[in-house]
Amino acid sequence: MMLEEYGKRAKAAARALACAMTEEKNDALLMIAAAIEENAPAILTANAEDLENGRANGLSDALLDRLALNEARIAGIADSLRQVVQLPDPVGRVLEETVRPNGLRLRKIAVPIGVIAVIYEARPNVTADSAGLCLKSGNAVLLRGGKEAIRSNIALAQVMRAALEQTAIPADAIQLVTDTTHESAQALMHLNGYVDVLIPRGSKRLIQAVVQQATVPVIETGAGVCHVYVDKAANVEMAADIIENAKTSRPSVCNAAECMLIHRDIAAQALPVIAERLRAKHTVIRGDARVQSILNGACEAATQDDWGHEYGDYIIAARVVDSIGDAIDYIYQYSTGHSECIVTDDADAAAEFMRRVDAAAVYHNASTRFTDGGEFGLGAEIGISTQKLHARGPLGLRELTSMKYEIFGSGQVR
Amino acid sequence: MMLEEYGKRAKAAARALACAMTEEKNDALLMIAAAIEENAPAILTANAEDLENGRANGLSDALLDRLALNEARIAGIADSLRQVVQLPDPVGRVLEETVRPNGLRLRKIAVPIGVIAVIYEARPNVTADSAGLCLKSGNAVLLRGGKEAIRSNIALAQVMRAALEQTAIPADAIQLVTDTTHESAQALMHLNGYVDVLIPRGSKRLIQAVVQQATVPVIETGAGVCHVYVDKAANVEMAADIIENAKTSRPSVCNAAECMLIHRDIAAQALPVIAERLRAKHTVIRGDARVQSILNGACEAATQDDWGHEYGDYIIAARVVDSIGDAIDYIYQYSTGHSECIVTDDADAAAEFMRRVDAAAVYHNASTRFTDGGEFGLGAEIGISTQKLHARGPLGLRELTSMKYEIFGSGQVR
Repeated sequence: MMLEEYGKRAKAAARALACAMTEEKNDALLMIAAAIEENAPAILTANAEDLENGRANGLSDALLDRLALNEARIAGIADSLRQVVQLPDPVGRVLEETVRPNGLRLRKIAVPIGVIAVIYEARPNVTADSAGLCLKSGNAVLLRGGKEAIRSNIALAQVMRAALEQTAIPADAIQLVTDTTHESAQALMHLNGYVDVLIPRGSKRLIQAVVQQATVPVIETGAGVCHVYVDKAANVEMAADIIENAKTSRPSVCNAAECMLIHRDIAAQALPVIAERLRAKHTVIRGDARVQSILNGACEAATQDDWGHEYGDYIIAARVVDSIGDAIDYIYQYSTGHSECIVTDDADAAAEFMRRVDAAAVYHNASTRFTDGGEFGLGAEIGISTQKLHARGPLGLRELTSMKYEIFGSGQVR
Repeated sequence: MMLEEYGKRAKAAARALACAMTEEKNDALLMIAAAIEENAPAILTANAEDLENGRANGLSDALLDRLALNEARIAGIADSLRQVVQLPDPVGRVLEETVRPNGLRLRKIAVPIGVIAVIYEARPNVTADSAGLCLKSGNAVLLRGGKEAIRSNIALAQVMRAALEQTAIPADAIQLVTDTTHESAQALMHLNGYVDVLIPRGSKRLIQAVVQQATVPVIETGAGVCHVYVDKAANVEMAADIIENAKTSRPSVCNAAECMLIHRDIAAQALPVIAERLRAKHTVIRGDARVQSILNGACEAATQDDWGHEYGDYIIAARVVDSIGDAIDYIYQYSTGHSECIVTDDADAAAEFMRRVDAAAVYHNASTRFTDGGEFGLGAEIGISTQKLHARGPLGLRELTSMKYEIFGSGQVR
């Protein structure tokens, strides 16, 4: 099938879905969740073929793990869909209401975006998660997963579409692009007139390729080079707690810390405490000259490549700074605008950091790991935006809506 | 100067501007307004050269009119800047505040977008208007106007930058790209890492070129194929008032109506009344067979090219429809999602139209000409977005902001 045909069907489905009642969408989500559980054997069979193929093609263990499904993971996928049912419907919210001097009544209300395309890699759970969030927010979705997971994705999409056939929601609200060639991704990136927004999910390489090449609107997600700045007025134990958590609780995710900046006045006192905690978690420190001198060899030497580096691993860069201003300047230079943190008991320092650091999330005395749709109270998320247009930070259901003005008059002309 | 150099300077200026106080920004706007008035002679001299050059190059009268400045137009530019001073500062607004069960306090606040680039054509007033709106919203602006207005733009930009030199705002907050070659526009469209959003203003051709080619985020503006649907339960006089106004009060603008759809049950009664009004305004109707039959030759025959056509002139397409559903389907097919109107006394019909028509502004019993930042109470606007991401409809100061989360903790880890 040509990509344009997918686009046409998605657009037609989006038009119907935009007017669907909350109950109809929730019923559909519950049907899909049940169908995925019922059809677990078929989905697992398809997944086993993907895994076998992946092993034959020499996929890494990490990639194979992301690709793998099992009974528990399928139950997790179904549970996620049921959690989306519990979230409030973001469509139809009245965002603003005003009456103009000429008597015109303006109402700004939330509406679906329309057709959302998602390009992703080898994780089949993204197929169901994205479909669920798009459906609840009234958007048709075009899914284009990686070739490694294609059999699993086809199985999941078939089950979801068959479930929709029994509901008020058109099956074309969820479509999987089964062609996994480079050309199909390219065509999707250029499907202007059909795709209202394209969300890339996955590696930095994938995301940058989409940002560089797409002509449809894109929401950039992902890359997180997050810093924790330990101010001279920091509580050292709290700083150690936060850095340990931000670095080691899940190093592969985008809200994990990659670098710590320590004020020179507290460095000699704080660094040994923090280093001890990190050592216990088998985490390597790569420090500048002052850090090396304080830790007396209990760290590696940082090179220029370590600044602004997203390790995604048990490694953290470390640097002594002369002032809060230096810390802010350093973050300005190396941050990806994801999540940044100051640890301090000084309210003025915290206020300065909050005001001057430009990132989706700026923290005072809390771990950067909280940047997450669930932790922020948005429910599930389809990604974390690191761009400034449309939405910044976790992309929950509300961020998957647009708006329109409804204007009520009594014959007004201009 | 290379485009990247402009980008670097803009980014540095944006960083300072993001933290500027409202008063500092307002003072700067007043200084600029005064400087433009004081330097009117120099600006007019530059403009006279542009006009002379334009005439020599055979520019149309309409284009020369858009290009022309005079004392009154310069006073108008200064007044617009003073009006922006009166508008509330969109930066720092608290958009949301929540406390999570773990005690984390989240605050979502409005921040500037950063660097806004504007590509436009021959209207020098866009130079000052865009600079004023970007400055007030805390954004640095990169202006790239057309070659026809380059001398006027250079004069305006020099005056504005010189005025900024006497304020707390860096002069690089306003930069004009003086290279008006195709290559400079291309470079600006690909200035990723420096340009946070690019807004094209001008012809459909310009806007489409930017949408197709840019790799930086773009807000699509402009094209307006707006419809007025006269329902069977319409007040005929009101319908005639609205269509006359929507078509003829300013046919060249994007919120002007291009097509009227008349319900068959009211067509024989309403069309002659509406046609008479339009005739008095020297407006040509291009009707389908049923319209032609009712108007008995007092209209031209529409061809397929007339549907979805943006005339920007004293011409309106007309069509008889069998039902409100047909009207909505027709609008779905031909609308650009700008402004759509239903005229009816039937509340149910109005509600159906409001719900099912997807456009930036949907009107009940009022002229489409009201889609405008000033009329909506937003103050001045930098354009009207016809896309669904980030902002839809008039782009006022608030639409020129992004947001960030500030998170206040007491040592929370995850």
